[in-house]
Amino acid sequence: MTDAFDSTDSLRSAEPLKHVQSVTFEQPVQLELGGELPVTVAYETYGQLNAAKDNAVLICHALSGDSHVAAHNADDAPGWWDVCVGPGKPIDTDRYFVICPNILGGCRGTTGPGAINPDTDRPYGADFPTITINDMVEAQRMLVDHLGIKRLLAVVGGSMGGQMAISWAIRHPDRVRGLVPLATSPRVSSQSLAFDIVGRNAILHDPNHAGGQYYDKGQGPMVGLALARMIAHVTYLSRESMEEKFDATRYEPRDLPVAFEKEFSVGSYLGYQGAKFVDRFDANSYLAITMAIDLFDLGSTVAELTEVLAESTGRWLVISFTSDWLFPPRQSRLVVQSLLAEEKPVSYCNVSSNCGHDAFLLEDDVAVYGELIRGFLANLRGDENGSTNDVHRHGRGSIFAADRLDYDHVVDLVDPGASVLDLGCGTGGLLTQLKRRGHQRLMGVEIDEQAIVASVRAGLDVVHADLERDLTIFGDKQFDLVVLSRTLQVVHDVEGVMDQMLRIGRKCIVTFPNFGYHKLRTMLADQGRAPVAGVLSHQWYNTPNLRFLSITDFEEFCQAHGITVHVRQFLDTEAGLDVADDPNLNADLAIFVVSR
Amino acid sequence: MTDAFDSTDSLRSAEPLKHVQSVTFEQPVQLELGGELPVTVAYETYGQLNAAKDNAVLICHALSGDSHVAAHNADDAPGWWDVCVGPGKPIDTDRYFVICPNILGGCRGTTGPGAINPDTDRPYGADFPTITINDMVEAQRMLVDHLGIKRLLAVVGGSMGGQMAISWAIRHPDRVRGLVPLATSPRVSSQSLAFDIVGRNAILHDPNHAGGQYYDKGQGPMVGLALARMIAHVTYLSRESMEEKFDATRYEPRDLPVAFEKEFSVGSYLGYQGAKFVDRFDANSYLAITMAIDLFDLGSTVAELTEVLAESTGRWLVISFTSDWLFPPRQSRLVVQSLLAEEKPVSYCNVSSNCGHDAFLLEDDVAVYGELIRGFLANLRGDENGSTNDVHRHGRGSIFAADRLDYDHVVDLVDPGASVLDLGCGTGGLLTQLKRRGHQRLMGVEIDEQAIVASVRAGLDVVHADLERDLTIFGDKQFDLVVLSRTLQVVHDVEGVMDQMLRIGRKCIVTFPNFGYHKLRTMLADQGRAPVAGVLSHQWYNTPNLRFLSITDFEEFCQAHGITVHVRQFLDTEAGLDVADDPNLNADLAIFVVSR
Repeated sequence: MTDAFDSTDSLRSAEPLKHVQSVTFEQPVQLELGGELPVTVAYETYGQLNAAKDNAVLICHALSGDSHVAAHNADDAPGWWDVCVGPGKPIDTDRYFVICPNILGGCRGTTGPGAINPDTDRPYGADFPTITINDMVEAQRMLVDHLGIKRLLAVVGGSMGGQMAISWAIRHPDRVRGLVPLATSPRVSSQSLAFDIVGRNAILHDPNHAGGQYYDKGQGPMVGLALARMIAHVTYLSRESMEEKFDATRYEPRDLPVAFEKEFSVGSYLGYQGAKFVDRFDANSYLAITMAIDLFDLGSTVAELTEVLAESTGRWLVISFTSDWLFPPRQSRLVVQSLLAEEKPVSYCNVSSNCGHDAFLLEDDVAVYGELIRGFLANLRGDENGSTNDVHRHGRGSIFAADRLDYDHVVDLVDPGASVLDLGCGTGGLLTQLKRRGHQRLMGVEIDEQAIVASVRAGLDVVHADLERDLTIFGDKQFDLVVLSRTLQVVHDVEGVMDQMLRIGRKCIVTFPNFGYHKLRTMLADQGRAPVAGVLSHQWYNTPNLRFLSITDFEEFCQAHGITVHVRQFLDTEAGLDVADDPNLNADLAIFVVSR
Repeated sequence: MTDAFDSTDSLRSAEPLKHVQSVTFEQPVQLELGGELPVTVAYETYGQLNAAKDNAVLICHALSGDSHVAAHNADDAPGWWDVCVGPGKPIDTDRYFVICPNILGGCRGTTGPGAINPDTDRPYGADFPTITINDMVEAQRMLVDHLGIKRLLAVVGGSMGGQMAISWAIRHPDRVRGLVPLATSPRVSSQSLAFDIVGRNAILHDPNHAGGQYYDKGQGPMVGLALARMIAHVTYLSRESMEEKFDATRYEPRDLPVAFEKEFSVGSYLGYQGAKFVDRFDANSYLAITMAIDLFDLGSTVAELTEVLAESTGRWLVISFTSDWLFPPRQSRLVVQSLLAEEKPVSYCNVSSNCGHDAFLLEDDVAVYGELIRGFLANLRGDENGSTNDVHRHGRGSIFAADRLDYDHVVDLVDPGASVLDLGCGTGGLLTQLKRRGHQRLMGVEIDEQAIVASVRAGLDVVHADLERDLTIFGDKQFDLVVLSRTLQVVHDVEGVMDQMLRIGRKCIVTFPNFGYHKLRTMLADQGRAPVAGVLSHQWYNTPNLRFLSITDFEEFCQAHGITVHVRQFLDTEAGLDVADDPNLNADLAIFVVSR
């Protein structure tokens, strides 16, 4: 983390933006909740639109952002997402044409409550109509038309920007190939809503709000807006990041020229953030925008969301952050689950982070979320330029493959063209083999972040999930085949995971090490020791394996649990041979195709 | 949960309290931060002080509480802790003499900023001195003297009340036998501090605050206080409980006569809570009390806290709640760890709850926290009247004991008078046997809430902890003996847990099922099946056992890890015999005494 007072946000200033362009539309925006609004949109662009006009990435900013997503050159003022946007950055302006408009309702060039109402020749103030996220998207759509772009490569946005990305997918499915909502929600939590409400109450009850018509008065509702900003600022950070920033220096406030309580370091920080925000942000914009965020509501159940997302045709990369309590990961998971219900292509990663909601803006975790975005964008056009394709790392001869003789057997067991869900897909080795064979619908489930990054880079769809807890995100019989390769023995809840697999897959392939293998039996029988041999190469006290089952055990399990066995294959992986004779004694690895 | 608008707090009214008494002291309170303050204390009492004057329980209220902890009779107004205090309730007023004073700085009878300053004959207002938690405790101490009580049975309090309980232990260790801090902290988190600061800023910047001298004006800083209350109210609830209360009815606000935003149900609720609070609470008291909470700081490290708590002589029951994010469980755990460092008697439970910080006030979890308090109080005088003493349930002949032949062997291996830590103590069977044998320093570690309640009821000290993660709360060589009875085989991180045990105990007793037992060997060797026999009575797919080790394996583990074996005992539990001949083949259970 940087100095406590130099949050990304505090770099934003009220200075005019040098590279901003703007367009005033002849047609007004027809507002979702009624009425119409003549609109000017301020925006900045980065990089070059290619001849095919298929490399445009639209970036949607969050509540307090603006069109200045990145610095245009070394002399330019910092942008709010410099860590992610620029030459060679994850959203690479050497490859993509980046468009970032200020949102409708904002106060940095695009029409908002501070703009002149043509009917009165005075600022709208409280007369500014109630706008929605969809209205903001409508203004963006008009800008995209204006730029002559038929289909965006992607719409990317965090927080409120993520709401816009989702809205694009719903309203203009044919206008965008890829959607990247970060740290967002289909409907804010009641807790987040409550904080927004208190913030709005603080503004509305500031006597200087003057019913919203304060533009020609000495000052606006500066105290109310600063209070709203202070509350919001706390919700952007995590408890952990606040500890890091302020615990050691609790009694060392900075003596800043602000009117707020400065008894504690965190107080002087919040006072500074609040006072600084007032300089660059319009209170009426704050009211209008937070209300739009709070009114955005695609539903709170999978059923509701699934219906809303049904028309989406783009590919999705959904990203959340573990310590984000304003837009908690569960809300992103709900979007993912709803997309899966309609068999939409989606990848998801819940990035492990201490940075709270702000994580999506910060450098701390850009190695994960940024690389996910880079890999995702690179594969959107199908050119796979960006795909380093890890499959080679897992081909024959690599240390990983040496351990995975069963891959080839599994691949041979997959019917041509079958849809496949690989549970514990790692870096996507098996799925990449299947992709090469021409399978269309392939998906991985993985728990390791770096493996997910690699899978996304390889152009695969992979969902961040815990086998033991999260398989309920998939629907019944959604895949022709579900694969659980050498993982059954590390599972706690064997019955639960098997039930889920058999529910999701028409058929399932399960491979596991055979505890009945003669070397293992001998170790226990003759030496009286926990077996260490073959594929069971760890000691009793540090093996990841928690379940010890033989082929006979598994057969009995299937019988007792109403599971039909379609295929059995048995291997001696040490000798590299198939085993036909007494496999429970002679095979160290078993492969079953089963269904219920 | 009850109706969303009937939170416990909303039952509080501004009406005069019928049963309140008060005492005005001749000597002023000497304030911790300088100056002195003449003090009147308002209080209520419940039940009878016994002849020995050793049954008095002092209850310390939280920020917005008062002396009316419970209704005095059926006609009386509800108290803020009726679920916990009253005849037959966990703090049983048929047994205990309960005292609940309004705190110093408050606005319900005890001297606070709204009281008349004798120097000016006007309310103190902003001239009220900065007070601390210790000053509040000093006023309570004077009240306890006034009531003629030399030694309190216990001081009980949640949130800020918990801070007072801790302060009592430090300042007046000889005046109290038992301390029960709930949902509290030795120092608020930077996040909680931040919310308090924003609340104070809202009050201080309300034009009607008028520098604190608003008492003779038309109205005080009603908007600022309401905003502060709204913010605080959100922090008292958990995200989950807000979902339950408001998600389904998001767009159904109640039309209440309050001036705040009523766009959403949660908004009308907060507006109602805020407006209602203003009726019964003084803004200057809010400022003074929240500042006292924020200034309470016993340190943020175990070293600092241990030093501060060194003089404590009482017994402790520390309670936190899993969904409390205002005073998160980690802070209570820090208190526990510091008490353990000085070998103080302490029990701890992190109650699983969805109710957030408010949990300690609500009925939802009183079956756990209330019963913990009941059991703890019952054992404080050593009369054990309240102890139903579960040991009988685990004596010979019970189903539990039938399974625990090794208990007797373990007890025999414990040196007379040795201090013992039992990891996974369950309901305290082993520890109770040792207690009867006269051992003084006994402690259990347990993960199950109900087992903790039973152990506390049995008069044992037990700490809620996860063996795999939390053993670092104990210091080096703190116990003569650490016992891990039939648990090694369910441990993931065997080396980690063994290291911790050997660090904490001068010696350790480890018992485990022997995987080398002949019946188990035979099953695998002859039948090729995962063994199910003797003490290993589960199937491979549902056994809680994750590690399979033989006596030989454990001997080798000790050798490889520099662990000295002092005693070996081997049992055939099916036959009920000790095994001398080839134990790795013939014993199904092994008992080792080891050290490092």
